[in-house]
Amino acid sequence: MKILLKIAYNGTNYCGWQRQPNVDTVEGQLYKALKKIYKHEIILKGASRTDAKVHALAQYATFEVIENKIPFNRLPQVINKILPDDIVVRSAIEVPIYFNARYSAKEKTYTYCIQNGSFLNPIYRNLSCYERKKLDLDLMKEGSKYFIGTHDFSAFRTIGGNVKTTVRTIYKIDFEENNNIITITFNGNSFLYNMVRIMTGTLIKVGHQKIKPEKIQEIILSKDRSLSGKTAEPHGLTLVDIKYD
Amino acid sequence: MKILLKIAYNGTNYCGWQRQPNVDTVEGQLYKALKKIYKHEIILKGASRTDAKVHALAQYATFEVIENKIPFNRLPQVINKILPDDIVVRSAIEVPIYFNARYSAKEKTYTYCIQNGSFLNPIYRNLSCYERKKLDLDLMKEGSKYFIGTHDFSAFRTIGGNVKTTVRTIYKIDFEENNNIITITFNGNSFLYNMVRIMTGTLIKVGHQKIKPEKIQEIILSKDRSLSGKTAEPHGLTLVDIKYD
Repeated sequence: MKILLKIAYNGTNYCGWQRQPNVDTVEGQLYKALKKIYKHEIILKGASRTDAKVHALAQYATFEVIENKIPFNRLPQVINKILPDDIVVRSAIEVPIYFNARYSAKEKTYTYCIQNGSFLNPIYRNLSCYERKKLDLDLMKEGSKYFIGTHDFSAFRTIGGNVKTTVRTIYKIDFEENNNIITITFNGNSFLYNMVRIMTGTLIKVGHQKIKPEKIQEIILSKDRSLSGKTAEPHGLTLVDIKYD
Repeated sequence: MKILLKIAYNGTNYCGWQRQPNVDTVEGQLYKALKKIYKHEIILKGASRTDAKVHALAQYATFEVIENKIPFNRLPQVINKILPDDIVVRSAIEVPIYFNARYSAKEKTYTYCIQNGSFLNPIYRNLSCYERKKLDLDLMKEGSKYFIGTHDFSAFRTIGGNVKTTVRTIYKIDFEENNNIITITFNGNSFLYNMVRIMTGTLIKVGHQKIKPEKIQEIILSKDRSLSGKTAEPHGLTLVDIKYD
């Protein structure tokens, strides 16, 4: 029987999603909790390998069990009792055996938060990056339009991980500004490694008028990572949604 | 020369404001930074001794220096370079030698955040307390009205600290609800030790219909701490403002 979990976490204290020896990770915590409950080896398969300090409102992961005696509506509670406070299982459902949390995903949404202003609120330090100099939001919005659509995003990824193609489709990029906090929402079919953070770093360069908005089209076509912006800090990033059929 | 600093911090990783041996505190971090800059002993006097895990957007503290060569508009930057990321000096001004950050304060404002609902977002875990069962906000608002005005708040404090009187004046209590987050703003001339957290714990009891709103008046008159609610968890509390003449 294959079970799909929806998981939220504050990534501040974790070395990312993926289980690794000797470091604390979100998958590692879940693995320990599930092993304790089901009393057999557990193989978790996550939808997204979020990096250290990256947060999630809706990460997904599957695991298989020989037998499940816990009703699905109670399972999150049972797991959450074992998990630390900063990881929460939101729901559990049964999925067909061919379901794959990563490859069955049709759409993903991430947000990236930037604190922008002379006062950088330390209360939200772990949830946003800091940009003291005022960003020009209109220029950033203009620049973001060049990302929309299907492109080869080679210039916007960190090499690593095995991907069959570097072509991705971005459906939507939205901006919200509230007090001094700019939230950018990225929605697409899938994202390359560090793609959201590099797109954000590039939009920050546009917002600081270091490059023109239309330059983004050129960078996409160049497929040259050295032309795009810095990889924005991990703690501003949150995986907020994944859609399955 | 006496200097007044305005300070913001995320209290998650600190054992409160007050400097103590062998533990990490906000005052301790500031003390180290200022000693490094001024190269002589520093005596900090804070406005509020916030507890472990309590946050601040506007804590104030004074210290005296023999000589200050750093312009006040640059001083925050100089101190912030030494401070860890989760403590930020927002401003520095000179104040008269008789000024006392604690006793010269005319008005203080605190917020308390409660996550209320079936999904308790771990991303905001260190910034709010959790109440899974739906709170009745209207009842809480009604109950809060009994706090307004000048009362002996003996039933709403933890014994400790030397106070001349347990009489305090509450000017305003406001409620805001956004998604699943309830923010209560308390504004008064001054607050006793743990007073905001105990008022919040009592309002939560009202919200869960364990006591009637009008019961709050009775509890105030009783001066009996055993009749009021639990001390709400520290991490939901933020010192947001202090007013001086």
